[in-house]
Amino acid sequence: MMEYRGRHYRTVWWEDGALKMIDQTLLPFTFTVAVSSSCRDTARHIRRMTVRGAPAIGAAGAYGMVQAFMEGKPEEGETALRATRPTARDLFAGIDRVKKAAGEASPRDRASAALAAAEEFAAHSAEECRLIGEQGAPLIGDGSTVLTHCNAGWLACVDWGTALAPVYRAHREGKRIFVLVDETRPRCQGGKLTAWELSGEGIPHAVIPDTAAGFYMRRGKVDMVITGADRIAFNGDTANKIGTLQVAVCAQRFGIPFYIAAPWATFDPECTSGSEIPIEERDPEEVTRMAGRDETGRLVSVRVCNPDSRAENPAFDVTPAELVTGYITPAGVITAADIPRVVPR
Amino acid sequence: MMEYRGRHYRTVWWEDGALKMIDQTLLPFTFTVAVSSSCRDTARHIRRMTVRGAPAIGAAGAYGMVQAFMEGKPEEGETALRATRPTARDLFAGIDRVKKAAGEASPRDRASAALAAAEEFAAHSAEECRLIGEQGAPLIGDGSTVLTHCNAGWLACVDWGTALAPVYRAHREGKRIFVLVDETRPRCQGGKLTAWELSGEGIPHAVIPDTAAGFYMRRGKVDMVITGADRIAFNGDTANKIGTLQVAVCAQRFGIPFYIAAPWATFDPECTSGSEIPIEERDPEEVTRMAGRDETGRLVSVRVCNPDSRAENPAFDVTPAELVTGYITPAGVITAADIPRVVPR
Repeated sequence: MMEYRGRHYRTVWWEDGALKMIDQTLLPFTFTVAVSSSCRDTARHIRRMTVRGAPAIGAAGAYGMVQAFMEGKPEEGETALRATRPTARDLFAGIDRVKKAAGEASPRDRASAALAAAEEFAAHSAEECRLIGEQGAPLIGDGSTVLTHCNAGWLACVDWGTALAPVYRAHREGKRIFVLVDETRPRCQGGKLTAWELSGEGIPHAVIPDTAAGFYMRRGKVDMVITGADRIAFNGDTANKIGTLQVAVCAQRFGIPFYIAAPWATFDPECTSGSEIPIEERDPEEVTRMAGRDETGRLVSVRVCNPDSRAENPAFDVTPAELVTGYITPAGVITAADIPRVVPR
Repeated sequence: MMEYRGRHYRTVWWEDGALKMIDQTLLPFTFTVAVSSSCRDTARHIRRMTVRGAPAIGAAGAYGMVQAFMEGKPEEGETALRATRPTARDLFAGIDRVKKAAGEASPRDRASAALAAAEEFAAHSAEECRLIGEQGAPLIGDGSTVLTHCNAGWLACVDWGTALAPVYRAHREGKRIFVLVDETRPRCQGGKLTAWELSGEGIPHAVIPDTAAGFYMRRGKVDMVITGADRIAFNGDTANKIGTLQVAVCAQRFGIPFYIAAPWATFDPECTSGSEIPIEERDPEEVTRMAGRDETGRLVSVRVCNPDSRAENPAFDVTPAELVTGYITPAGVITAADIPRVVPR
């Protein structure tokens, strides 16, 4: 279980009749808990990335549906939640899970059945991430260097993380591990969130520009790569944060194992291949501007690009299955060929 | 010849007994000319990147040596200039050229011989870049999309550019070209300088995060890649801005031609292979902080990384010759196998 200043936190949780979330837009500079009291507000938080990371928005989507049932407007709420972000499968899995449970209950019990289903979905997601840690830790040798992209730690999940769960587990088992953290432009979830998590756990690491991953690989400084996933097609093609594809291409070129870590909700049996995964295009201002802390400690946004130029901002890319050494799942490390056999349909 | 607001500028030039440079640390927000009146000050400007780009710092180094001779301290000046930046070959070529010319002159004529040599070195560099444009333009088809990394435009050179010279030439010939501009963290010379240059020339372009280059290549949206170079070894291995290696690896994977454009001073016949090229490590604050313009128009530096984490900042990487489709030189497009035959030793 992941802690901040000695207290255990989940990234998203239900408390006092409201949805609470660690506000990830303010980290690493300020640790604040955001509160959402309506489905509409939860949808807004998912869209603005107060909460982000496929498993975490899966849970947020589930709790958002609880709010929709409590408000007596499940269709309207579902539409709003589904429209927030298109790529991560977990979001739709969370929404569907709660909708199904509520649909099976009597009208009087609908809201409480929805809440029970969301709580169960979140707890199950956390447990799956814990198991991913158990399954993946043996892959990490003592003294090795792991490269990761974006943030697939506990902030991206309800607890534990996906890509970082094996790292946390191996570290707690006493292995010496060094993590190379891709900064992950444009939003810098690597430099801001992954680095913050690793600092909290006391795991040695260095942040590198995304441009430097290949440099370290070619120099033999990377023993393995582990990333998370937003959606895994039935053939193993994997959508993840923009830049993952390049890391996977370089890993193959330089003979470095490349692993994807994900819970079952990220696997999408209805996507035959990666070409069917919708890719979110986000606001180009995420590229042309950058948020950071100025000299006075204030969080400000500065323009870092020629003002007359336009930018493009695809948020995800698809890594073809042939570049993935293995998928670290709650039930073990599998290959793309195993997916049809083991993924619950 | 490149222009800003209707006036032709070189990036570095000698005027009124001093070295003048477009201050590239303030672009694209402010166009300012910096003046250096001493060799020591020129060395400082090269180190802080007032002037940057291999051919441009070659000329700055040449003019810096002129100042060293004028100050009567050529050894001290040479040492200071050589210590500024280790990777670009052009810097050492510029210093050596002026030193040789001054050494061949009588003591009385030494300073004026040095200045004549520096002027000739700069003019020759500009002419070579013009020729690179002529030689490279036929490679660019009408309607094609060129991806480039960092800034290898006229700001990086005395005039015209290296990677961008063929783009400018083809554009002036009437070809329709679209340029995908890698932002190029950590210093964002792509988003800041290349985008500014392309805007000035009226060439359609979009800035993308470095993480997105592979995404566009896999989608078939990139017809060719052209980058500059800081040093090209005798076997064709090429040091260039960090991130070039990843772009080249992806280009090969997706079957896209990858070209390096460079004048002769960038080729180093004394480097047998890329492993002999010294790689500059720069201040990690370039990664953990980012400079940009805030709401009030002020240029500020903000922290964009977890404060407790350290960063690493290798400034260059080496692309092996086998990934380079061709080298666009002033004398034509050559392959690595041609280098021993055509490079002046």
